[in-house]
Amino acid sequence: MFEVFENKTIKEILNKYLDIWSIGYASGLLGWDSETYMPKESIKERSIVFGRLAVLRQKMMLSSEFKDLVKKGEKEQNLNDYEAGVIRVLKREIERFEKLPPEFIEEMERVTSKARVVWREAKAKSDYNMFKPYLGKIFELSRKAAEYLGYEEHPYDALLDLYEEGLKTREVDSMFKELGPQLRDFLKKIIESQNYSATHPLEETQYDIEKMKALNTEILKLFKFPFERGRIDVSAHPFTSGFGVYDVRITTRYEGKDFRRSLLAVIHEFGHALYELQIDEKLMATPIAGGVSLGVHESQSRFWENMIGRSKAFTETNFELFKKYLDFLKDYTPDDVYRYFNIVKPDFIRVEADEVTYNQHILIRFEIEKGVMEEKINVDELPQIWNSLMEKYLGITPPNDALGVLQDIHWSMGSTGYFPTYSIGTILATQIAVKLEKELGNLSELITEKKYDEIKSWLKEKFHRWGSTYPPKELIKRALGEEMNPKYFIEHLKRKYSEIYSL
Amino acid sequence: MFEVFENKTIKEILNKYLDIWSIGYASGLLGWDSETYMPKESIKERSIVFGRLAVLRQKMMLSSEFKDLVKKGEKEQNLNDYEAGVIRVLKREIERFEKLPPEFIEEMERVTSKARVVWREAKAKSDYNMFKPYLGKIFELSRKAAEYLGYEEHPYDALLDLYEEGLKTREVDSMFKELGPQLRDFLKKIIESQNYSATHPLEETQYDIEKMKALNTEILKLFKFPFERGRIDVSAHPFTSGFGVYDVRITTRYEGKDFRRSLLAVIHEFGHALYELQIDEKLMATPIAGGVSLGVHESQSRFWENMIGRSKAFTETNFELFKKYLDFLKDYTPDDVYRYFNIVKPDFIRVEADEVTYNQHILIRFEIEKGVMEEKINVDELPQIWNSLMEKYLGITPPNDALGVLQDIHWSMGSTGYFPTYSIGTILATQIAVKLEKELGNLSELITEKKYDEIKSWLKEKFHRWGSTYPPKELIKRALGEEMNPKYFIEHLKRKYSEIYSL
Repeated sequence: MFEVFENKTIKEILNKYLDIWSIGYASGLLGWDSETYMPKESIKERSIVFGRLAVLRQKMMLSSEFKDLVKKGEKEQNLNDYEAGVIRVLKREIERFEKLPPEFIEEMERVTSKARVVWREAKAKSDYNMFKPYLGKIFELSRKAAEYLGYEEHPYDALLDLYEEGLKTREVDSMFKELGPQLRDFLKKIIESQNYSATHPLEETQYDIEKMKALNTEILKLFKFPFERGRIDVSAHPFTSGFGVYDVRITTRYEGKDFRRSLLAVIHEFGHALYELQIDEKLMATPIAGGVSLGVHESQSRFWENMIGRSKAFTETNFELFKKYLDFLKDYTPDDVYRYFNIVKPDFIRVEADEVTYNQHILIRFEIEKGVMEEKINVDELPQIWNSLMEKYLGITPPNDALGVLQDIHWSMGSTGYFPTYSIGTILATQIAVKLEKELGNLSELITEKKYDEIKSWLKEKFHRWGSTYPPKELIKRALGEEMNPKYFIEHLKRKYSEIYSL
Repeated sequence: MFEVFENKTIKEILNKYLDIWSIGYASGLLGWDSETYMPKESIKERSIVFGRLAVLRQKMMLSSEFKDLVKKGEKEQNLNDYEAGVIRVLKREIERFEKLPPEFIEEMERVTSKARVVWREAKAKSDYNMFKPYLGKIFELSRKAAEYLGYEEHPYDALLDLYEEGLKTREVDSMFKELGPQLRDFLKKIIESQNYSATHPLEETQYDIEKMKALNTEILKLFKFPFERGRIDVSAHPFTSGFGVYDVRITTRYEGKDFRRSLLAVIHEFGHALYELQIDEKLMATPIAGGVSLGVHESQSRFWENMIGRSKAFTETNFELFKKYLDFLKDYTPDDVYRYFNIVKPDFIRVEADEVTYNQHILIRFEIEKGVMEEKINVDELPQIWNSLMEKYLGITPPNDALGVLQDIHWSMGSTGYFPTYSIGTILATQIAVKLEKELGNLSELITEKKYDEIKSWLKEKFHRWGSTYPPKELIKRALGEEMNPKYFIEHLKRKYSEIYSL
């Protein structure tokens, strides 16, 4: 254990850290269970456990013994990259914990673990008022968190940084200023094209849930998902939960129709899982044995979902496999499935949004969160604001709150500031594909020839194996030779959808 | 919360205890997951987590702050029964922890969490040699534990006390001296009777696993198992895992034939689960919110399994329900099923043993554990010793180690000293039935009239609601008006099986 770490102080830190890591591992399993198998009333006790474990973990990080060790480690000379990574990650976390009082963390954990359960029911019943008091409390706590954490320009910066090191509201603003108009113009062109259709018959076609589960398993086997190190289960909102490099679990959902929703969720979560699974085992149980940021994480899931799952090569190569489990596909061609996987249309649900409209969904959430942080928006008017932003950016109005403001799990988890990382990931995914093609050759051919091992090894070497060794911006630079650049995303969209819609 | 606790010091203790309880809760879920859904390789990290959490929990119990509080609580006047229970339970645990060094506990946890995985594979392959080094290490640690814990008469006493407060090797010896000869004589009579048959066609009859799962669920619904507070899953060895009063999970197994094995396991585990589920919610998250001892726990599972599940009233009343899911029963009568549920015959597997032979299985394990503790037995010769004891007490020799020495999960968990509580539970179950009939009327009638609510309320009032408020011997005396007495068990066997075998 700890064999890539040579420095004595670092080894001492890592050994102490095992307690903290163990609490995190256990909390991870508790969280996974809460979304998959937990009996409903269990939450009465479990919310106490979540709160207590979070505070315990914080206390351990902030014990003078541990802090002094980290300070000692900081002064060590000639640390290797892994060792420097350990110090960087721990320092960042200690500083965050020092700013957030234990009572605050406990309250946040307690409120959100209850809120998640209420959210699930509120969403099922499309009853915003049920969830409203919890959301109000969570937003209040988010504003409090920003004050505790501190910021220079904008309170929202404090929250963005939690998910993407150093990201500023200003940067997200300018990213959306560049993307927004181009996406709106391009969407307009698509809607006005001759090939445009707002509906597709496969969206309403029912599937057999057991057969769909079997198909999802086949796809995971095609990608050689290591079932000896992971699982797939069912939850309301698909997610990936990695407790360590040897236990990474994904979920999907089964609505009984519109099979791409279930399938693309599996491929998306597979991308997240692969990141955690391909972290160097030698980093096991250390502070750097996890994905470095949410943006980078999302770039991996989006790469698999958008660049592989939604590609023509993928739908064509696997059409016979799909048909084996989905009888109704006998009335369709591979090209039909490709188009069905890539229909562009303004719709209500972010997680099933196409590549062209996806970032508008994020923009809406970004504007709301920014408004909440600026105290310009309160929870009473949120459904109305949501709906008017949907009208403004996508030209549609959700028929109910389940399809509107209640659709995402994130706010119930207190993850304000999280959404912009989705856009970062979506953009990075296209940039990764360009770099991969330069080094491995044409992606369509790799997919057609089922050379997933090659793709996986490349991703491992470039991104995964390092865990959190390097900060996100450095990792991106090392992997891609340049910084994130939205131009690759725009180019990808224009190339792909101009063909589909004969623009 | 904590509303039945009035004393200020006790409240302070309980509030501090929430951290300890939370660690225990998380460890409970980790354990449940390890036996049900965990991917195989996860154990590489998880064994570290088990070890670290166990030591953390011990450190918290032994922190001078917590110990001083408990000492202060001990001196408080006029504690109510719940408060006195809290002090009794904590004192006992602190004393145990003070005797066992943290390194020892961590080693035990690390060895056993690996051993459980190896045991599962060794049992599947019937490969004792695979498991032997782990078992050797575990027995060595058990002897070490006895030395650390201390004892007056026999090293095994130290281990017995872990599971059944105050139980002595001497007492178990004399219990088996009373039961042993009577059981052997009675078994001999049965084997020599005209009605005796060593086989039953239903033992070889295949069932559909999905239908069997549905039947098990129906039985749980019949007993009004609260699915909002619990689950049923599948594992190699059936068990019950209660993390709190709001989350109690049971498992069973599906071998595809001999349906009573799966069904009676469900009823048995239901009895365990009911105990935890009916503990007063006001004791939630306190040290007394759990069953008081393994013997009392087993009396609850055995009551449901033997006194209800194996009763004529139960098999007759539910025959049509069984038939609905098990087509093959159309060729049988309710009386056939009753006899099938109650076949007496010397056989290899303890958990499926009948009421007459069951205690001989325990006697074998008791003799082995006693021998191990006296250093008269080592693991090289264990399969031979096991087989010769089987020959001695049951007149049969297991054809392989999976059906012999490898059958139980207990040793892989380091639970030396656990087995005798099974005999205590079996005996107590019959005694409970006698008392219940005195107070509620004929048990057969209650079962026939499906008055499970009445039975459950009675058990709750007598045993369950108190959790660990009273020590086991006091609880038994309060509930039954007398101490445990094996005569009820012998009477029950003679009455029931004399009729079945026309003796």
